[in-house]
Order: sequence, then C-alpha cells, then structure tokens
Amino acid sequence: MKSPFLSRRDFLKTSALAVAGLPLLGTQAAEPKRKIGFALCGLGNLSTHQIAPALQTTEFCRLAGIVTGTPAKAARWKAQYNIPDHCIYNYDTMAQMADNPDIDVVYVVTPNALHEESTVKAAKAGKHVLCEKPMEISVARCQQMIDACRDAKKLLAIGYRLHFEPNNLECVRLAREKVFGQLKSIEAGFGFAIGDPKQWRLNRALAGGGPLMDVGIYALQAMRYLTGDEPVEVSATQSTTDKTKFHDVEETISWQLKFPGGLLANGEATYGFNGPNRFNAYAERGSFGMEPAYSYHGLRGHRSDGHEIQLPDIDQFAAEMDDFAQCILNQRPTRVPGEEGLRDVKIMMAIYEAARTGKAVTL
Amino acid sequence: MKSPFLSRRDFLKTSALAVAGLPLLGTQAAEPKRKIGFALCGLGNLSTHQIAPALQTTEFCRLAGIVTGTPAKAARWKAQYNIPDHCIYNYDTMAQMADNPDIDVVYVVTPNALHEESTVKAAKAGKHVLCEKPMEISVARCQQMIDACRDAKKLLAIGYRLHFEPNNLECVRLAREKVFGQLKSIEAGFGFAIGDPKQWRLNRALAGGGPLMDVGIYALQAMRYLTGDEPVEVSATQSTTDKTKFHDVEETISWQLKFPGGLLANGEATYGFNGPNRFNAYAERGSFGMEPAYSYHGLRGHRSDGHEIQLPDIDQFAAEMDDFAQCILNQRPTRVPGEEGLRDVKIMMAIYEAARTGKAVTL
Repeated sequence: MKSPFLSRRDFLKTSALAVAGLPLLGTQAAEPKRKIGFALCGLGNLSTHQIAPALQTTEFCRLAGIVTGTPAKAARWKAQYNIPDHCIYNYDTMAQMADNPDIDVVYVVTPNALHEESTVKAAKAGKHVLCEKPMEISVARCQQMIDACRDAKKLLAIGYRLHFEPNNLECVRLAREKVFGQLKSIEAGFGFAIGDPKQWRLNRALAGGGPLMDVGIYALQAMRYLTGDEPVEVSATQSTTDKTKFHDVEETISWQLKFPGGLLANGEATYGFNGPNRFNAYAERGSFGMEPAYSYHGLRGHRSDGHEIQLPDIDQFAAEMDDFAQCILNQRPTRVPGEEGLRDVKIMMAIYEAARTGKAVTL
Repeated sequence: MKSPFLSRRDFLKTSALAVAGLPLLGTQAAEPKRKIGFALCGLGNLSTHQIAPALQTTEFCRLAGIVTGTPAKAARWKAQYNIPDHCIYNYDTMAQMADNPDIDVVYVVTPNALHEESTVKAAKAGKHVLCEKPMEISVARCQQMIDACRDAKKLLAIGYRLHFEPNNLECVRLAREKVFGQLKSIEAGFGFAIGDPKQWRLNRALAGGGPLMDVGIYALQAMRYLTGDEPVEVSATQSTTDKTKFHDVEETISWQLKFPGGLLANGEATYGFNGPNRFNAYAERGSFGMEPAYSYHGLRGHRSDGHEIQLPDIDQFAAEMDDFAQCILNQRPTRVPGEEGLRDVKIMMAIYEAARTGKAVTL
C-alpha cells in the first residue's frame, strides 16, 4: 500500500529499504492472529490518557510492557493493566528486553531529548521502535536513531498520527490529485496557552526548543504532506511577550517555507495563547483546509466549493500503532520512517537559525 | 470625535495640525446644508462602480466634477451625472480648478504612481485632497503630497474606507479595550486571482509593486489599527509561480512584523489565487477576527466566546467621503491623514527590502 502522504522520494527510499534491509521477522504472515507486543517507554500524560487507552482498541497490538523511571508509576500501571513483573523496565534495565519475546516494539514517549537514548537501547535489545514526534532535538541524534535501527535490522517509525487520519488524508488527496488545480500557497498554524511553567516542554535541554518543536511540527508536516515536496528556503521570526515564562524557549514563532516551483507556506506556532489549529491550502481553482486540523478528535475540513470534509473520527493512535504492527507482521515499510522525522528536525533547525540570524536559510 | 483607529501618536499629531495649521475654510459651520463638491480624478472601475454611486448616497457630498484623460469618458460621465462643462478637466488643465468654487475636493483615483502628480496639482489649485490607497509608490512622493497640501493649507486624507466600517471598528474596540486581554498575535491576509495580464496593477512603474501595495495594505492596516502601534522589525518572503504573468511585480508575498512588546503579526498578499480575506487577532483570554474582512460588503466577524460580529453593512465609500466632508465643514482633522498613508508605504518598502535581501529590516 502506497501512502498518499509519501512523496516519490520517500516511496523510493522506503521501498529500497524494504528490499535491501528489512529484517526477517520471527512472526510470519502465516500467523496473523499474533498481536504485536508494545512496551510504552515514558508514562506521562500522552501514554496515560491517549496511547494506553488506544492500545486497548487496536486490532494488531497489545500493551505488553512499560519502561519508567518512577516506581510508583510502575506499580500503578502494573495494577491497572495487569503487566507482569518481567515486562516492567526502567531506563537502566532496557538492555534486558533482549531476552523478552513478549515485547516486539518500544514506543518512545519520553521528553524529546531522551528519544535517542531510549531508541538506541531498544534497537540494541532487538526491538522495533515507534518514537513520538519531534524525533529528537538535533539532526545528528536523529541520524543515530536511524543508524541504530538499521544496524539492528529493526523498523523505526515516528508517531505522526495524522498520516492515518481520514480527514487529513482527504486533504492530501485533494492536493495531490489537484482537485482544485496546482497548489499555490499554504498557511498553517497550531498553538495553545501553555500551563505549568515548570514542565519539560519549556526546558530547552529536554525539549530542544519551544512550540515549534511541539506543535509547530504539525503545521510543518501539513505543508510537507500537502505538497509532497521539500522546502528549499526558510525564513522565520520569533517573539516573546512573557519573558518570565519563556526564558528558555520561544513563546511564538512564525516561518515561511519556499518550495520548488514557488509555492509559499506560512506557519505559526505558539505557547503564548490559544492560537490557530488550522491549515488552509490555496490552489488555482479553489481552496480547502481544516480547522481544527490537528486535534485528537473532532477534526473538520472545508472546501471552497462548499463541500464539507467530515470523515469518520477515528482513534489516531490506535490507527498509527495498528499500521506499525502490520508493517512488522507483513514485512512492509512504514509510511512514517525515521527519515521523515529527521527531515522535519532539519527544517526546524533551519527555522530556528533563520529566526536567530534574521536571514533566510537555504536548505 | 476621536477615532478608535487613532494611536496616541496619531491623535497628538492630527490635533496639533488642527490647532497649528488647519485652513480657514470658505464654508462656515453656520451653513451646514452646503454639500462639499467632489471632483473624481481618474475614472476607472473604482470611480465608476463604487465611488460615483456612493456619492449619490452621501449626506454632505456631491459629484461636482471629473478629471480624465479620455474624452469619451468625459462625455459619458457628463451625460450620466449632468456635469457642467466647466467642471470637466483633464490632467493638463487641473490648475484651472483654482477658479472653480464648485469643486472643494479632488478625489484621486488614478494608478498609484500618478497620485503625487494629481495631488500636488489639486493642492496648488486650492483643493482638499482625498487620495486612494496606497498613497504613492515611494516615501519621498508621499512626503511631497503632505508638503503640498500643508503649504496650500488644504486637508489631505487617504481612502482607508475600513476606518469607517462598523465591524472593523468593533474589532478595533475589542483590541484596544482589551476585551480578551492583551493582544499576542495577529494574522492577516488578502488576495485574489488577478485577471487581465495587461492591467496597470501588474506594471511596476504604475503600481509601485504587486499585491502587497494593492491588497496587502489592508492586512497591514489591520495589524496597525488593531494594535494601535507601529512595527519595529520586518521580515518577508516573496514568490512567483507564474513568471509569464508576474514578470514585473510579485505574485505572492508574506511578511512578519514585530511590534514593541513582542506582538508578532503575519501577513500574506497575493494576485496568484483567490486567497484569504481575513484577519485573526489572538489575545490572552481569547481571539477574534473577521472573514471576509476587507470586502465592500458582507463583512463578518467572529469571537472565541461564540458571539458573532455582524454590524450594519454600510456604504464604506460614502462614509469615508461624508467624514472627509465633515472634516472640511467642521474644520477638524481627518482620522486618515497623509501621514497614515506615508507610514504604510514606508513599511511596505521595508517589506520589499526584506523580501529582496532575505534579511530582517529594522524600522
């Protein structure tokens, strides 16, 4: 199955990967009933309120284990999900997963700057890795993650849940099939008024950056999956109105990407206010977009010809995990490989450079 | 009456002007029934389809004369509006207006690069000037217009019709009275797929630039009238996908303004596609905006608390002209003086410089 999100370059790359290096798996296509065992690594809000509940609704996955540095969380999860002791790890014991056939995948849900460490440990323990976005806080670390999984002959996917979301997929179809003609411009923004000033998202060492890394990445992804293309030039401006809360990362950032052929994309991300949750794509003969575009539920799209876009509201995390499980079961490449995550990080680093220097950056 | 659009700086400036230099007018407040005579200078689409019809609905104005370089237009307008021969001018005979007491105001509606010439001629002939936006194609020319009207002791206003539009004014009130708290960010865009490739708007010598000058100025104005402040830094990116049609001016341009205190504003203007017609203002406790924001009719606003903004749909040109007539009749300053027009041109020139150089420009 070719994902409508994949650019031609992606497709060739992942197809080549599939032929050249995709691991032979212990699980054969002849045993389709076996559920892929997921260990959740990092038991914060996302794991607690989204991923663990989603796992209960998947077709091909099961919550098999956990990795946490907090014994109290381990006890709570053990009780709630009936997780056996041999499937409970902390960050120092992950190497022992190598001896645990119940765990096929480690889903890395830690703060951004800890993704590389856990991914490499998981890969070395012979596990496939699904890693939350943003992939990491530098291109070099992303590359290390890709290398570690490739060396271990394990799959690596990034948690880009919207690649499995029907309304976003419909917009990708409208763009790629040129239903309104050639795309001319995209504007996309995502932001919210962040709460607790002590959370890791406001700590540059753990987050790698501010709202761009956390929510701006959705707007950046929209630009990339709608065009199916890669930007060639970036400019950006960042700004902070509350210097007490935002002393370590930016409060608000806007950026412009120029794509081959001249398409211009404008993005904005913020932690300073309840901002947009939206993209709009303008084409030769009309426009379309979504608002809200990036939420877990309730997404809605619009088209300039008056048609609404309101396809089924699915559990995006369940879809994402079931897809990864099927990649493993059927030995096919993921539509959201590590290379996709690295490309976003590379562009985000260029956005930060452009904002810092006040100069356009060529990619 | 203090306009809610005026910044403190504007107000002091225009008040000072009123005290120091506002001309004594032939018309006294004791004769409120006298209608101010407008001569339309430039009889293109805007004059034909908007301004002349609007003049028929004004309370304090009348269509008194015309200035046109096209004899056939003169004949048509003479017949349609019963304009006497002594009130029909061409660009070479404008000096003779000095002897015509029927004409109080020249409304300059020519291509942008001809505004200065007609404004100076009108001022020298002792007429007040209302000039369409953008004021001119350079800061120097704007200053010459201001100087000419000041030397002649005549009023100069720029045709910023939205300063008289109730829905836009309500948004200015929401911003200035901090109904949703301090403003944090603004995004504004305006654009359309331009038709005839031979029109003057695509000719840099006549237009001074592309969609930024023509429609982007509305988005820029929104940023300035919502904040009541002046930007301190500009960055911008421009792009062209159709190099046949857009060989002389930009097709699409996006820009970012940083305001004192850190507010960030993102703008976009285009001639390449039917783009946005919108602004959104994000504040501490909510957001509001308009879509469509800049049209002649049918404007609608929205607020994050669910209230709609839908105030009466007025004839904006009539309101603008009646206000200017009242400024003349009551010897008060206009809320849209030449200085306001110059400031936009200055910022737009900085936007073009930033786009051309790929570097942020400090204002």
